[in-house]
Amino acid sequence: MESMIDERLSPMELHEAWPALSAEERAEGFRMLPRDQAEDFFVQLETREQRELLLALPNGERRSYARLLPPDDLADIVQETPEEEREALLGLLDPVARKEVQALLAYKEDEAGGLMNPRYVRLRPEMSVDEAIAYLRKRMREPIEMVAYGYVLDNQQRLLGVVSYRSLVTAPPDKRVQDIMHGEPVTVPEEMDQEAVSHLFAKYNLIALPVVDAEGRMKGVVTGDDIVDVVKEEATEDIHKIGAVQALGAPYLQVSLLQMIRKRGGWLAALFLGEMLTATAMGFFEAEIAKAVVLALFIPLIISSGGNSGSQASTLVVRAMALGEVRLREWWRVLMRELPVGLALGGILGAIGLLRILLWQAASHCYGEHYMLVALTVALSLVGVVLWGTVMGSMLPLLLRRLGADPASASAPFVATLVDVTGLIIYFTCAIAVMRGVLL
Amino acid sequence: MESMIDERLSPMELHEAWPALSAEERAEGFRMLPRDQAEDFFVQLETREQRELLLALPNGERRSYARLLPPDDLADIVQETPEEEREALLGLLDPVARKEVQALLAYKEDEAGGLMNPRYVRLRPEMSVDEAIAYLRKRMREPIEMVAYGYVLDNQQRLLGVVSYRSLVTAPPDKRVQDIMHGEPVTVPEEMDQEAVSHLFAKYNLIALPVVDAEGRMKGVVTGDDIVDVVKEEATEDIHKIGAVQALGAPYLQVSLLQMIRKRGGWLAALFLGEMLTATAMGFFEAEIAKAVVLALFIPLIISSGGNSGSQASTLVVRAMALGEVRLREWWRVLMRELPVGLALGGILGAIGLLRILLWQAASHCYGEHYMLVALTVALSLVGVVLWGTVMGSMLPLLLRRLGADPASASAPFVATLVDVTGLIIYFTCAIAVMRGVLL
Repeated sequence: MESMIDERLSPMELHEAWPALSAEERAEGFRMLPRDQAEDFFVQLETREQRELLLALPNGERRSYARLLPPDDLADIVQETPEEEREALLGLLDPVARKEVQALLAYKEDEAGGLMNPRYVRLRPEMSVDEAIAYLRKRMREPIEMVAYGYVLDNQQRLLGVVSYRSLVTAPPDKRVQDIMHGEPVTVPEEMDQEAVSHLFAKYNLIALPVVDAEGRMKGVVTGDDIVDVVKEEATEDIHKIGAVQALGAPYLQVSLLQMIRKRGGWLAALFLGEMLTATAMGFFEAEIAKAVVLALFIPLIISSGGNSGSQASTLVVRAMALGEVRLREWWRVLMRELPVGLALGGILGAIGLLRILLWQAASHCYGEHYMLVALTVALSLVGVVLWGTVMGSMLPLLLRRLGADPASASAPFVATLVDVTGLIIYFTCAIAVMRGVLL
Repeated sequence: MESMIDERLSPMELHEAWPALSAEERAEGFRMLPRDQAEDFFVQLETREQRELLLALPNGERRSYARLLPPDDLADIVQETPEEEREALLGLLDPVARKEVQALLAYKEDEAGGLMNPRYVRLRPEMSVDEAIAYLRKRMREPIEMVAYGYVLDNQQRLLGVVSYRSLVTAPPDKRVQDIMHGEPVTVPEEMDQEAVSHLFAKYNLIALPVVDAEGRMKGVVTGDDIVDVVKEEATEDIHKIGAVQALGAPYLQVSLLQMIRKRGGWLAALFLGEMLTATAMGFFEAEIAKAVVLALFIPLIISSGGNSGSQASTLVVRAMALGEVRLREWWRVLMRELPVGLALGGILGAIGLLRILLWQAASHCYGEHYMLVALTVALSLVGVVLWGTVMGSMLPLLLRRLGADPASASAPFVATLVDVTGLIIYFTCAIAVMRGVLL
């Protein structure tokens, strides 16, 4: 295929074309940028794109771009790199950076330690404001995380307090750092899960949080821009799970077809196996269907109503749990809400169903002489099935959490499948109860 | 009911108990806190909770806490307040703040202007670094957005550049602001949608972005902590839509039962009406079902497989569109991916279905002498239904966007409902083709 890059693109044009380009074309277009524009362009790429671009560059250039990145981003890149290429990538770094990156690699990618930048501004409590500013001026050229705060540490590296640059800039020059610092900073334990870290950010509206170990020693800084990424990532994971897809972990258009089939085929086949129980359940009622074929007409309507109400309930509870609005011990409150809601929703659908059958019957007599029994069966079943779907859908995420699994696995299709079998049983049980001696 | 607040709680205890308390109990517990702790506590609450708390406080206290909030948060609170209480709330503010809040109210809540804080640090290009720092010291006590940057404006309030406090703190004192400023800052148009703003944040990894009008005049600052909230909010909205629930707009446990029924009942009833078409479709095939009841057994299995594969595809495409990974004009690329994926997934389920029928037949002879035809019908239908579900699920979000609607409305249940009717038609068409002259 001919290269799509036939002329020098501006950074804007390259950015526009980026998603459609192959790795080689990207590197080609990137290398045509003037150095300063290339650096700006590189820094704003996503971690995954930075890695791919780095690996597509010739060795000499690779090194100088790798140095532009802070250790936490470098660690992410190394983590996403296949085992056998990692050493080569680490070899690009100077010894200090390499050591920092290796320390970060000891953390899991989705915990605070794996998100943090180990470079930050350290201040001592007895420094004056002027000394602190002078010290900052000296460290100016180093690539440390200087977003908004300096961190005040004692001799054992324990975090004593936080000083915002704002307060440094605005305080009288002869004040001491310990007099202007915020003495009880919110901290993040190094092994805290990234989702919990994002809750802390949202709660305290801070733009950076210090990460400390069990002894209160400061290990690094997590900044808000990392958290925006985390929040997006976690939401994407949850949304994929709600749709019964294994989390893709990469942009949709960049996942290979084989990967795509694997990430979807697993759940789809599992749901299919579960759904086979419906054929078994139907088998038990084959005689009833043979006697009253009219019953078969409403099967899709009944079971899909259970599935839909279950999807609604599970989606709401899964999201509420992810946002920390509902905790496991509140399952009872959830149940006490969903019971009346399920009953009301079932009642609404039941009434519509009843009306529909009576209207069609009046128009075309299509349901035979016992249409009233059919209508009653459908309406009753709808109440039961929707109530059941609502309760199952709302309790399943809580049950999964209780069992140590991810509540988001209670996907809409999973709940629908669970509810389908029971929906059939509810329907035919209603039918037998209502029609015994008449049609059945 | 006896109050749950029978003793003075620490801020930590109050925070723990918060979700379970009524508005009155919250106000009661809050007012028992010492003033400084109360202020800290108030500031970290969510906007909605701040509003409810404010409204539950006596008038005198209300005013002093309202003043703690920046104008953008105040505007949010006013926006969420019923029309008739707004004047009273605005009356609590001093004239400057009231004017700022009223200006913000002109923006929609979900655009950049509605997110921004109109107070920020203005610098002039010809100031020296020392003058800038002295100016900052003077403005120290005002509640302005001083997170990390000062904004350099000309006489017409047009934004010339951005100066980080870091660079102010670390630059030689006699340099001029215009020499150390970043001259081509990323800016946000005032009417930009909040989702687009969040993409800019994620892309540039910045902690604050300036908002400008069409003439380049600076209007305010959007900060990263607002964006974390936006990203969460947007994800929640999308997740609720994917689950076929109208966005709740409030925490799950705080929505009234009636609201809950309304937010769910609408979609559920609409889906139910759509699903009624299945009963109509089934009516056309009543004669076939009567002749071969065995066909009815597999109806739930067939249609749910279509629904599940459709849910997967729509969820993936909806999320990819929300993240900006897939754009409308890329519909062809999506289709070209989903066709082979759908065919492969359909093939897998078809094979499992074929195997299942053959195995059950071998074990119990439950499908009669023409079991091979039944198995063939089911397998063929599965390929067709899954392929169809996949294509519909992936194209529907793009079609909705094309029509100006929200792609996330292509919820899992919506897609499943759409696919159910066609699934039945595919199934019975296959059955008639395969079994004509034998069973049908």
